Amino acid sequence: METVFKYDDLYRFTYAVFKYMGCDDEHAATATSVLLSADVRGIDSHGVARLSGYVRLWEAGRINTVPKIQVTHQTPSTAVVDGDAGLGLVVAPYAMSIAMEKADKVGTGWVSVRNSNHFGIAGYHAMMALKNDMIGIAMTNASALVAPTFSIERMLGTNPIAVAIPAGEQPAFVADFATTTAANGKLEILQRENKNAPPGWVQDKNGNVSINANELKNGGALLPLGTDREHGSHKGYALGSIVDIFSAVLSGASYGPWAPPFPAYVPMPEMMPGKGLGHFFGAMRIDAFRPAEEFKEHMDKWIERFRDAKVGAGHDKVLIPGDPEREMEAIRMKDGIPVVESVVNELKMLAAKFGVDWNMG
Amino acid sequence: METVFKYDDLYRFTYAVFKYMGCDDEHAATATSVLLSADVRGIDSHGVARLSGYVRLWEAGRINTVPKIQVTHQTPSTAVVDGDAGLGLVVAPYAMSIAMEKADKVGTGWVSVRNSNHFGIAGYHAMMALKNDMIGIAMTNASALVAPTFSIERMLGTNPIAVAIPAGEQPAFVADFATTTAANGKLEILQRENKNAPPGWVQDKNGNVSINANELKNGGALLPLGTDREHGSHKGYALGSIVDIFSAVLSGASYGPWAPPFPAYVPMPEMMPGKGLGHFFGAMRIDAFRPAEEFKEHMDKWIERFRDAKVGAGHDKVLIPGDPEREMEAIRMKDGIPVVESVVNELKMLAAKFGVDWNMG
Repeated sequence: METVFKYDDLYRFTYAVFKYMGCDDEHAATATSVLLSADVRGIDSHGVARLSGYVRLWEAGRINTVPKIQVTHQTPSTAVVDGDAGLGLVVAPYAMSIAMEKADKVGTGWVSVRNSNHFGIAGYHAMMALKNDMIGIAMTNASALVAPTFSIERMLGTNPIAVAIPAGEQPAFVADFATTTAANGKLEILQRENKNAPPGWVQDKNGNVSINANELKNGGALLPLGTDREHGSHKGYALGSIVDIFSAVLSGASYGPWAPPFPAYVPMPEMMPGKGLGHFFGAMRIDAFRPAEEFKEHMDKWIERFRDAKVGAGHDKVLIPGDPEREMEAIRMKDGIPVVESVVNELKMLAAKFGVDWNMG
Repeated sequence: METVFKYDDLYRFTYAVFKYMGCDDEHAATATSVLLSADVRGIDSHGVARLSGYVRLWEAGRINTVPKIQVTHQTPSTAVVDGDAGLGLVVAPYAMSIAMEKADKVGTGWVSVRNSNHFGIAGYHAMMALKNDMIGIAMTNASALVAPTFSIERMLGTNPIAVAIPAGEQPAFVADFATTTAANGKLEILQRENKNAPPGWVQDKNGNVSINANELKNGGALLPLGTDREHGSHKGYALGSIVDIFSAVLSGASYGPWAPPFPAYVPMPEMMPGKGLGHFFGAMRIDAFRPAEEFKEHMDKWIERFRDAKVGAGHDKVLIPGDPEREMEAIRMKDGIPVVESVVNELKMLAAKFGVDWNMG
C-alpha cells in the first residue's frame, strides 16, 4: 500500500515539522529541500521515511535545532566546520557553500565537518556546485554496519560518495553511491516486502554468506563493495575507510565503530574519539583547469559516447551516473511521490503529536 | 621458473636502459625508482615486466624521452601539466610535486595532466606526500579494457586510485587499487600459469560470464568493481568514469575508448579528443585541517582499532590498506626480487640489443 503525495504538500508538512522542532525559517526550508530531494530522486530510504528518525534524535537531545555552525580553522583552500550538533541537512549545505566560496577564490575548496548528524543524500550537496560550473564532491561517515574484509565486526558505515560533474547540452554526470555492495535502504525495502537478499549483500554474525534481509538484527553485517576478497571487497573497504578518515579523522568527528548511531534508541558509544558525525566536501572550479565551455563540450562528447556503447543481450542502453535519479525526478515532480503505508502512518502520528496540519491536497 | 635479483642490480640495469633511451640522469633515476617500486611492493605486473613495453612505445615514437614538461594553466590551488609525451614515470612525480608545492602555500594542490604515458603504480605518487605530512592522491586513465554495466564494449581503463594518509607510530594507510573487480595484472598471472579466472572478473564478447583468463583476446572485457548490477558494478563503473574525467577531460588528454593503448603494436585511435594519457594528483596538508600530530595520533587509534577488529573463521587478522605491500617490500629489499623467466628473457634481449651490461651479481 502506498499513498501518492504532491511535492508541495510533502514540503509544507515537512517544513512545519522542522519549524515545530525549533528550526528558524531558513534552516527549516533548507532541511526540507535536502530531505525531500531524496524522495524526488527515488532514494526513498533517505527522505520522509527518515523524518521521524530525525525527530527522535531531537527528542533524545542529540540534535540541536538552533546550532551555531562555525568555521573553526581555515586556509585559503580548506576549512573545518563545527556543526554544533545541528541537523546534517542544514550543516552540510553550509559547509558546501564554504567549499564553493574557496573554489571561487583559489580554484578549489575542501571542507571537513565535525559535530554533525545525518545529511540526507550526498548527491544533493555535490550537485550544489553544478550551477557555478564547478565539480562537487560530498561524502559522510555513518553508524557502523559494515564489516571490513575478513572481519565479522561492524566497523564502518555505508559511507557514501557523491561526485557531480557539469556537462553542456547533456545533463550533469552525478554519481552518488554507498561504498557497500548494496545500500542499507535496499535491505529495508526487502524487509518490508518479506523477501530474501541476493547472496553477497550481507554476512551473518560468523561471517558466512546470508540471504536473510534481517541479518543485521542478528549481529550480521553489510559487505563492502566487491562482496568478498576474490571480487575486490578490500577495495570497497578501503573506499569506506577513506570516507571515514576524510570526514571524521580530519575534522575531529567520531569515527569507525564509534560513529554515533542514527536510531535514537541505540545508546551512544561510551568512548567517542571525536564529536558527532563527520562529512567531507569538495568544490573544484572547472576553469581552474580549462575553459568551462571547452570542458563541457568534451563532457557532452564523453556522455554521448558512453550512451552509444554497445549493450549486451537483454539490456536497453548504457546509463550515465545520475540518469535513473533524474528520470525519477521528472516523473515524481509531475505525478507525485509514492510513500509506503508504514511511513504515512509515522507522518500522521507526527502530525497528531505536534499539532501540525495534515492537509495533503 | 623465477630468478631472484638484488634491488641494486635491477636498478642499475633499468637505469642503463632508460639512459640508452635518451633520458637524462635525473629522469632515468626517477623513472627507475618509480618502475621498481612496483616490483618491490609485489605489484609485479607494473614493474620491470613492463620495461620492454615502454621501450617499444619509445621505438614507435610514442614516448619522448627528452620532454619539456610544463604547467600550461594554474590557480593558487590547481594546475594543468602537459607532459610533452614523456614517460609517465617522470611526468607524474613532477606533477605531484606541483600539487605539494601548492598545498604548502594554500592548504591543498590539485593537478590534472595531459599528454603523458603510463605512470607505473599510482601508490608511488600518492606516497610522495607522506613525508610532508600531507595526504596524497593519484589516479590515471588507461587503455580501454573495461565494459560499463550492461555494455559489451570496452570503454574504460582499469583506472586506478591511490590514497596515502600519514599516521604516527603506525605505518601510513596506503590504498592503491584498480576500479575493476580484478586488475589486469592478476589475469596476466593466470594466463602465464594456464589457469582459469574466478567467475566475476571478465565477461566474453557477448557479455556472458567467463572464466577464460584469455577472454580479452577474444573481444571480452574486464568488469567494473562490483562485477554485476546486483552487486554494485554501476559503482565501479562510476568510479572508473570519475578517474577518466578528472585525469583526461579536465586536462585535455584522450579519454574513454580513445585513450592511447599501451601495447605499441596496437594502432593509435583514429580520432583522439585530447593528447595522450591523463593523470590526476592531489595533496592536502594535514594541518590545513587540524594539527598534524593530533591527526596522526587519531590515525594510530583508527588503525589499531581496525587491526583489532574481530575476524571470521579461517582468517588471521584484518589488514590495513598498504599492509601487504609494505610487508612485501621488507622481504624483497632483504631477500631480493623474483622475476619470472619470460620477463628475464625480455630483459636479456634488451641488454643484448642495446649493449647494456647484464651484470646481475
